[in-house]
Amino acid sequence: METFEAIMNRRSIRKFTDVPIHEGRLERALRAAMNAPSAGTQLCWHFIVVVDRDVLKQIAADHKNAHMCDTAQAGVLFVADPTSERFGPFWQQDMGACVQNFLLAVHDMGLAACWTGIYPREQRVEDFRKMFDVPDEFIPMAFVPVGYPDEEKGPVDRFDEERVHIDKW
Amino acid sequence: METFEAIMNRRSIRKFTDVPIHEGRLERALRAAMNAPSAGTQLCWHFIVVVDRDVLKQIAADHKNAHMCDTAQAGVLFVADPTSERFGPFWQQDMGACVQNFLLAVHDMGLAACWTGIYPREQRVEDFRKMFDVPDEFIPMAFVPVGYPDEEKGPVDRFDEERVHIDKW
Repeated sequence: METFEAIMNRRSIRKFTDVPIHEGRLERALRAAMNAPSAGTQLCWHFIVVVDRDVLKQIAADHKNAHMCDTAQAGVLFVADPTSERFGPFWQQDMGACVQNFLLAVHDMGLAACWTGIYPREQRVEDFRKMFDVPDEFIPMAFVPVGYPDEEKGPVDRFDEERVHIDKW
Repeated sequence: METFEAIMNRRSIRKFTDVPIHEGRLERALRAAMNAPSAGTQLCWHFIVVVDRDVLKQIAADHKNAHMCDTAQAGVLFVADPTSERFGPFWQQDMGACVQNFLLAVHDMGLAACWTGIYPREQRVEDFRKMFDVPDEFIPMAFVPVGYPDEEKGPVDRFDEERVHIDKW
């Protein structure tokens, strides 16, 4: 799929079919995630891949904002490593770029996903840390359920020229 | 360009030719930026487009980490709007995804760019705020110089299977 098309047509999908995902596809999406830029190439990320449907259903039951895990065939927990910071706390920005690469690669393969936020909601951080044995020095930052889409959403174009300033604010 | 190819081949470019950039190309990259996902679709972004070469040279002189503005034909200041937050402080993550969409769209058009960090470095935030008259409630977050590449960098593949955990940490 063309890059600009992928960027413009990708949507958050919250309902997935029961078609399983080939393992190689998740690896391809993680390869894209790890090629995100990061401050001083600090590569502040880890990933926990979840394919156990019972675990996904438990996440859906525990977290209202992650209810779409109910039908997801897989999910990835994005975990930040602030101990890798070389130039200050840029990890939130780096992780944002990392998740976005993952979402675009997923969409490019005909799969779909939805970014569900964890950090900085303290209760969610603690819940995911406990559920996946994440050590204290790392931070569960987002969970992204993945699957083949079972809902159709057309493209949106959120361009707003009022947000674009020329030369000065 | 294919999406996966764009993600895997995009590099930070720090030297640009003197070929000017057609205005429509910057708009296309900003359209991509504004289609990034954001928490609750809060769309927490503004953009200041800079094409004045004197201003770009001044940024290069003032900020060592942005020295590549010296040869850039244009640049975009990414400004966050924390007042738009609907579900808590997710703006850093959202802005990261927004910058990444911009970088991929730029690369897709044969242009090149380099993400230079501003926030959370306080002095940089204040310098850019003053230089571009950014109101106090908004936050200059990153500056991205753009141009046609005048250096060649091959692709890198940063996939690291040690960062991938299955089911648990």
